[in-house]
Amino acid sequence: MAKGDKINFSTPSGFPEFLPSEKRLESYLLDIIRRVYESYGFTPIETPAVERLEVLQAKGNQGDNIIYGIDPILPPNRQAEKDKSGETGSEARALKFDQTVPLAAYIARHLNELTFPFARYQMDVVFRGERAKDGRFRQFRQCDIDVVARRELSLLYDAQMPAIITEIFEAINIGDFLIRINNRKVLTGFFKSLGIAETQIKSCISIVDTLEKIGQNKVKQDLEKEGISVEQAEKIIEFIKIDGSVDEVLDKLKHLANNLPETEQLALGVTELETVIAGVRNLGVAENRFCIDLSIARGLDYYTGTVYETTLLGHEALGSICSGGRYEELVGVFLGEKMPGVGISIGLTRLISRLLKAGILSSLAQTPAQVMVVNMQDDLMPTYLKVSQQLRQAGINVITNFDKRPLGKQFQLADKQGIQFCVIIGSEEAAAQKSSLKDLKSGEQVEVLLENLAEEVKRRLT
Amino acid sequence: MAKGDKINFSTPSGFPEFLPSEKRLESYLLDIIRRVYESYGFTPIETPAVERLEVLQAKGNQGDNIIYGIDPILPPNRQAEKDKSGETGSEARALKFDQTVPLAAYIARHLNELTFPFARYQMDVVFRGERAKDGRFRQFRQCDIDVVARRELSLLYDAQMPAIITEIFEAINIGDFLIRINNRKVLTGFFKSLGIAETQIKSCISIVDTLEKIGQNKVKQDLEKEGISVEQAEKIIEFIKIDGSVDEVLDKLKHLANNLPETEQLALGVTELETVIAGVRNLGVAENRFCIDLSIARGLDYYTGTVYETTLLGHEALGSICSGGRYEELVGVFLGEKMPGVGISIGLTRLISRLLKAGILSSLAQTPAQVMVVNMQDDLMPTYLKVSQQLRQAGINVITNFDKRPLGKQFQLADKQGIQFCVIIGSEEAAAQKSSLKDLKSGEQVEVLLENLAEEVKRRLT
Repeated sequence: MAKGDKINFSTPSGFPEFLPSEKRLESYLLDIIRRVYESYGFTPIETPAVERLEVLQAKGNQGDNIIYGIDPILPPNRQAEKDKSGETGSEARALKFDQTVPLAAYIARHLNELTFPFARYQMDVVFRGERAKDGRFRQFRQCDIDVVARRELSLLYDAQMPAIITEIFEAINIGDFLIRINNRKVLTGFFKSLGIAETQIKSCISIVDTLEKIGQNKVKQDLEKEGISVEQAEKIIEFIKIDGSVDEVLDKLKHLANNLPETEQLALGVTELETVIAGVRNLGVAENRFCIDLSIARGLDYYTGTVYETTLLGHEALGSICSGGRYEELVGVFLGEKMPGVGISIGLTRLISRLLKAGILSSLAQTPAQVMVVNMQDDLMPTYLKVSQQLRQAGINVITNFDKRPLGKQFQLADKQGIQFCVIIGSEEAAAQKSSLKDLKSGEQVEVLLENLAEEVKRRLT
Repeated sequence: MAKGDKINFSTPSGFPEFLPSEKRLESYLLDIIRRVYESYGFTPIETPAVERLEVLQAKGNQGDNIIYGIDPILPPNRQAEKDKSGETGSEARALKFDQTVPLAAYIARHLNELTFPFARYQMDVVFRGERAKDGRFRQFRQCDIDVVARRELSLLYDAQMPAIITEIFEAINIGDFLIRINNRKVLTGFFKSLGIAETQIKSCISIVDTLEKIGQNKVKQDLEKEGISVEQAEKIIEFIKIDGSVDEVLDKLKHLANNLPETEQLALGVTELETVIAGVRNLGVAENRFCIDLSIARGLDYYTGTVYETTLLGHEALGSICSGGRYEELVGVFLGEKMPGVGISIGLTRLISRLLKAGILSSLAQTPAQVMVVNMQDDLMPTYLKVSQQLRQAGINVITNFDKRPLGKQFQLADKQGIQFCVIIGSEEAAAQKSSLKDLKSGEQVEVLLENLAEEVKRRLT
């Protein structure tokens, strides 16, 4: 086996991998996210990791994303088959870099088999050839929901998103967070009212979106560089800094919409925002969970209405922990249809990695086992196996320790893995159909009849 | 958007994708498999889809597997960065084709952070450049467990595998199945006793393994081609056809071990098999769920002891639905250590696709939603949202229908997606704080007070 000595067995740079205690945390979070998504009727889909390259590049470009192409490497003994294999690269294929383009392809592929509005969740890994610095990953899991219609899509779908975000982060219990809501039509409408040319509006939005990162002076400078007058730039800054309660902000916006020139777009945006906020309130989201933030724009071109960002209060440096918005021309791209949709995304791999580092979340125990049945003497193994099965049938996760070792070592082995209970059965206990149940957390040890053991463990599990 | 018109948006050949109703079935099965795996204390891990090529090829070769290499494709606007990006192919990387080599790498990478025996499950997708015919997939999900030790690994871990297989397939409720157990030492030991040379034993085992596929005459011919004498070939056929109850087969094997020459290896194999069978029985696996089948060898070179296959009775053509075995020199390859392990694998994607085709399993409803709150009049939307949230808080999955359409259409929309209940609230009902609850399965409709609605739905959910 000397062969293995020189192999670099580390993960390729940027491809992360969790320890069991971290992977168990990911599973736990995935279960919560899935439960909330499903409670709103979102249904799971999974698209292949691999798509045709032309599909991934269909939105005119691939954004700034570096895509990984795939190509077969034949084993030496099958090199001769290569020509026959249909794997000669006649179709370029690559790994998906997000879940939006694949959603568009999925809808095109299964249009007549889906029911619209189509509300789906997808929690797959995606791949980007990022430079593997700054904690950026080249493979990471995203937990996305989108609801897509063929014609009209009620703004109440937009209103559900903050309710869903709230439920997830309250269930995860990560502390106070704030969902910042805006509407792109409010921004573009206001820019129009200022007399800013259509052609400049897109870059203005991108600049505004950087307010939190670069500060208001730099935003002003960047706007002026873009050809915006000093006066306009000042008005923009004043606008995006409008704050107050949700109702105060809405009132100020309505006042502007009534007093500025050319406010059709602005007024439409304000009405949309108002409808969404009313829905959020009717869904019972607490007032301290959301606000209107006119500086939120989301960098991505394709948003056309509501946009969201979520900030973990006290940990603003983490950036948005859940973002999204409404779009019109995204998922119908392969069908040549407008299909309005609204969605949000949680970048789970990055989120876990950052929350663990910041000490906001802790990893779980190494094993899902809650009980270890220890081995006191090999001849009692049939009893140990039987007792283990009884506990499992009651829904308890059990490791039977097959290796006879000093009792202290067995306790250590259990404790190291985060197993709370040890079940100890020697010949005396076996004869009396009972066991000693040791709680490794409290150190307490009690005698329990075998017939009551499962019940007792369940009662004590914390 | 005319751009999209010419794009081939179909999935690349061999990369399958499920409809929501099928994906929900997969999720349901994954939940069952995970629950059973965890009940035995197996802990989850996930390794990246991408490994260094030298890691994937570490076992001397990649078997017959065609590996997909990956290489970055830069977007046009970043072409200039290519040289700086560290993505210039200096390290060859490829997609994993199984979960065993990555397990070996994972153990090597985290040796000091893991607790041994290390019992892990892994349910990732893997990639093989198979020719996409015969229902073979190029991306598919495998649900694997393995338990690995640094020195000795009790045979009782081998005994747990049939218990786990039994629990999973009983929970999935796919009908009668039979776990066929053998031990490679029994086979190699018997061949040695016959005087077959060490160098021939490996190919003899591969030939024996094809008995079910090619029949006994062809096996005999193939053995003779391999240089085995007619007399030896006949004895081999006679041996692998030994049948009867588990105890009868064990008795026959013990008789052979006592009467043939050079039976050290054979006797060891028989003792191992006997120990495993005793454990399987002590774990409460029903006698009709398992047998000893001396023709089972598993094609793979690396098995050294216990081997398993699982046959769905009445559907033998499906092949083994869960297989595995014990190995010694597999997962320590990067460390240059012997690390005994035992594991099983369920090829879930293939299994689902075949069980659906054979009508053994049915896909689930299109949506996880159990209730649709219909829209009778837009002005009652606040009530609909509130009632929806009440139901969700009680653990019920709810779609609120935002679009006002004729009631019959709304029922149709619910029914098409497999939603069992509709909640109907008009102005009269709203005033009286009640609703009509319609069961779309039975057609029954009852009046329920809003405060009792969640309870009533839960009671009626089938």
